[in-house]
Amino acid sequence: MSSSINRIGKSTVPRTAISTSDEHSITVRGEDLCRDLIGRISFGEYFSLLVTGQRPSKGDARVLEATLVAIAEHGMVPSVQASRMTYAAAPDALQGAVAAGVLGCGSVILGASETAGQLFAEVDEAAKDGKLADAARTVVHRWREAGRAVPGYGHPLHKERDPRVARLFEVAREAGTRLRFVEIAEAVEQAIPEIVGKDLRLNVSAAIPAVLLGTNFPLRALRGVPILARTASLIAHLTEEAVNPSGFALSYQATRELVFEGPAGNGAAT
Amino acid sequence: MSSSINRIGKSTVPRTAISTSDEHSITVRGEDLCRDLIGRISFGEYFSLLVTGQRPSKGDARVLEATLVAIAEHGMVPSVQASRMTYAAAPDALQGAVAAGVLGCGSVILGASETAGQLFAEVDEAAKDGKLADAARTVVHRWREAGRAVPGYGHPLHKERDPRVARLFEVAREAGTRLRFVEIAEAVEQAIPEIVGKDLRLNVSAAIPAVLLGTNFPLRALRGVPILARTASLIAHLTEEAVNPSGFALSYQATRELVFEGPAGNGAAT
Amino acid sequence: MSSSINRIGKSTVPRTAISTSDEHSITVRGEDLCRDLIGRISFGEYFSLLVTGQRPSKGDARVLEATLVAIAEHGMVPSVQASRMTYAAAPDALQGAVAAGVLGCGSVILGASETAGQLFAEVDEAAKDGKLADAARTVVHRWREAGRAVPGYGHPLHKERDPRVARLFEVAREAGTRLRFVEIAEAVEQAIPEIVGKDLRLNVSAAIPAVLLGTNFPLRALRGVPILARTASLIAHLTEEAVNPSGFALSYQATRELVFEGPAGNGAAT
Amino acid sequence: MSSSINRIGKSTVPRTAISTSDEHSITVRGEDLCRDLIGRISFGEYFSLLVTGQRPSKGDARVLEATLVAIAEHGMVPSVQASRMTYAAAPDALQGAVAAGVLGCGSVILGASETAGQLFAEVDEAAKDGKLADAARTVVHRWREAGRAVPGYGHPLHKERDPRVARLFEVAREAGTRLRFVEIAEAVEQAIPEIVGKDLRLNVSAAIPAVLLGTNFPLRALRGVPILARTASLIAHLTEEAVNPSGFALSYQATRELVFEGPAGNGAAT
Repeated sequence: MSSSINRIGKSTVPRTAISTSDEHSITVRGEDLCRDLIGRISFGEYFSLLVTGQRPSKGDARVLEATLVAIAEHGMVPSVQASRMTYAAAPDALQGAVAAGVLGCGSVILGASETAGQLFAEVDEAAKDGKLADAARTVVHRWREAGRAVPGYGHPLHKERDPRVARLFEVAREAGTRLRFVEIAEAVEQAIPEIVGKDLRLNVSAAIPAVLLGTNFPLRALRGVPILARTASLIAHLTEEAVNPSGFALSYQATRELVFEGPAGNGAAT
Repeated sequence: MSSSINRIGKSTVPRTAISTSDEHSITVRGEDLCRDLIGRISFGEYFSLLVTGQRPSKGDARVLEATLVAIAEHGMVPSVQASRMTYAAAPDALQGAVAAGVLGCGSVILGASETAGQLFAEVDEAAKDGKLADAARTVVHRWREAGRAVPGYGHPLHKERDPRVARLFEVAREAGTRLRFVEIAEAVEQAIPEIVGKDLRLNVSAAIPAVLLGTNFPLRALRGVPILARTASLIAHLTEEAVNPSGFALSYQATRELVFEGPAGNGAAT
Repeated sequence: MSSSINRIGKSTVPRTAISTSDEHSITVRGEDLCRDLIGRISFGEYFSLLVTGQRPSKGDARVLEATLVAIAEHGMVPSVQASRMTYAAAPDALQGAVAAGVLGCGSVILGASETAGQLFAEVDEAAKDGKLADAARTVVHRWREAGRAVPGYGHPLHKERDPRVARLFEVAREAGTRLRFVEIAEAVEQAIPEIVGKDLRLNVSAAIPAVLLGTNFPLRALRGVPILARTASLIAHLTEEAVNPSGFALSYQATRELVFEGPAGNGAAT
Repeated sequence: MSSSINRIGKSTVPRTAISTSDEHSITVRGEDLCRDLIGRISFGEYFSLLVTGQRPSKGDARVLEATLVAIAEHGMVPSVQASRMTYAAAPDALQGAVAAGVLGCGSVILGASETAGQLFAEVDEAAKDGKLADAARTVVHRWREAGRAVPGYGHPLHKERDPRVARLFEVAREAGTRLRFVEIAEAVEQAIPEIVGKDLRLNVSAAIPAVLLGTNFPLRALRGVPILARTASLIAHLTEEAVNPSGFALSYQATRELVFEGPAGNGAAT
């Protein structure tokens, strides 16, 4: 039968634990959406409930909302530019322009939150029976040996510490969540100059796992935080683009100094 | 010069009013991100500030957060399926799977919030000097004449009113925001049976503009609400998919009864 | 049962006429893929077979390949920029960067091929019992009255006729395909100055439907031509980007003259 | 200045060697697009020229076109389903539905062509001074030790060799291109049973690099082949979807046996 091209993997029955519904109600993570959730919890708390299956504590929720606010917007960065150019070319499809921006949340830029979280988890593990400073040096050294960049440190604009870092750490302290990964993040920052040879300071992408891993938010969902946050900012930029377009102006400016370094045409354009 | 292929539209200088930054601070909509926003406002309030340029009132914020919670999650709907299948095929790129899901927020399904908002704005205008019931009948009739569906009414599962509708209206009443568009939405609901010939009840996609147009949230950003909300749900589903995969099982089930209705091969597979 | 949230539309059984397969063979549009197609027809001919269900004539195939070659590449245009920026930020996901570029094939830029095709079909219909010149004027006038741009005419760089136009028309003549829509395209070009008030010449987006509608390629698949063509170019640009990166340089240049026109921070960055 | 958030990486000047243009002509890879390319080379040859900078030999071109034909279409596979569901939900944005399908060309499914190419390159290197069979065993063993799957072997439907494999190898022989990587692919196939413990046969994803690495097509552009090929098929499926919709039927079928395994609501839906 032709459909067996799709018999991939072990299970052939889809499953989910997130939500179910009948004609009169919708249940999400064991709660009645209409009775218990709409109008009763914030969107940030709901994001936590959806991902973790449990309502966050007040402190955990405060830290999560703070990280979402911290990373959402930082001006005309590449993903925003890609999104605004896409909207200028295809204004009928807002969702397409948002998607184009989301696609820039990759390993190099916004995905660094997740990779930094993995680095911190390794340091945490290595420090089980020893000092944090030693563990940080060991793990940073190991990543550099493997040819990997240290994610979440250094910033093209904020040469000293990214100002969002101190504020996120302060929020975590006020919220009373675990500070273990904040300490790890700072131990890594101190280990960097000697091993990497540059004084790279914590940026927001490292600060996010530093505070979130001290809450109930799981490591494997970390990349979702910058993606969700950036989506809010993309919608704001596209709402602006619809009224005050900049998408084509960005693409014009981008190529004003473009260097063509290919072969000239034989008798044609040069 | 080759770059003039990009001289499209009137302006060649990009502009934005959303945010700016220097080495030590980031300013968003006139507020200092680190000092005034991180840890002080919720992600939902920040979304409103980003989009509108102004902090929402307490009531406006409550209504916005309620709509985001209402529309985020409703099980294994098509956009979630597309996203989980994409993740199963390309697990290294979480952002790609989120983008695939966002691309399903189109005119037929999640985009209905925006179109319903336009319908309500037309009714509002038509009712400037007359009765709401008459204006609703006139506008619904006009849309049907133009061959357009009435967006935001009827639901494949919730045959009576979608349970999220009553709750969102209740939240708007509690929050003290304007109820003008709630009244319009109900006037449209009453006009439908006679004009459309079916008793289609309000669903969540009409309830969202009904409550949001009574706040400071602009019509032109309405489609952003289901997109942002759904992104939160997609991240939850993909976090589940990473641990309990269903993507390929969904694609297997989807084609179990697939009918091939093309020409048979001449001697080959049939 | 929860899954009935997905009972949307009339049919609940998926169908396709494109292809089927068994363990030993794959049948596409009635032909045995391995025996009859691989190594025997070009990719362009196969695209035609996939879309139309029939092998193109030699002339039809030649015209289709010519349009794909004509529209694929035109330098660092907005969709290429969006794609290269996305790749720079997310280099692990080539497919994501391609998708970001494809998302810029919208109504304003590459989608104009389809809209121009619709315009020409209207002129064809209007000219059933009369002169082409009159029909062109009537239809262009009608589109302008409706507030629509005339798609496929005018170009930011090629102020006289886009050089691809003459070549595509020449290929169609050589290939012996129907020239009816070439005549329509030229009739529209002649009607424009008087009605629009500007002397806008044919560009490649109008030339594509002008030649393709004289072959077996259907109007409703027209937008697929620039999308497929551009995908080839995007892959070339991303292969270059992987070795000689320009993505971040583009985004840097794009914002060198960025104007911030929002409120200054109260004591913060300006 | 705010834009320095975009000073990322070493170069701030974008460069390209692919194409340039002036008002009267477009030069691609040193050739005049209108004079030398449109109507003179096939789309498949043009793809090769764009990616490699040189026109392919007749044999190289034939092999490339054969791989594009081989991988384009295989029925209602997950990426096609995701694309059709997306189109059903957002029919105004064809490019969005194509993008959703392209996003499924990831590491697990269509991306295997590139990974298999890397595997073969390693075997080629290891066999520089020795036997192919030994080198294949060594490299397959190394990949398994590192916990990596062997890409391009095994198929859910084609348990014996995927029928496209023999045909692609035959085309390469007829075309007279290098067969070194075909031999490597077969050496790997022979090494698998002993090392992996299963008799996994070559599928199309391994056959593509096996034949292409014997031409001028570079390893680093391999993933582009299934992406471009699949785009042609996606456009065909979406053209069918526009007339005979299956997108929502697929999503309905997919969840008919959905298992909900989360907590029941307290008094709410179950």
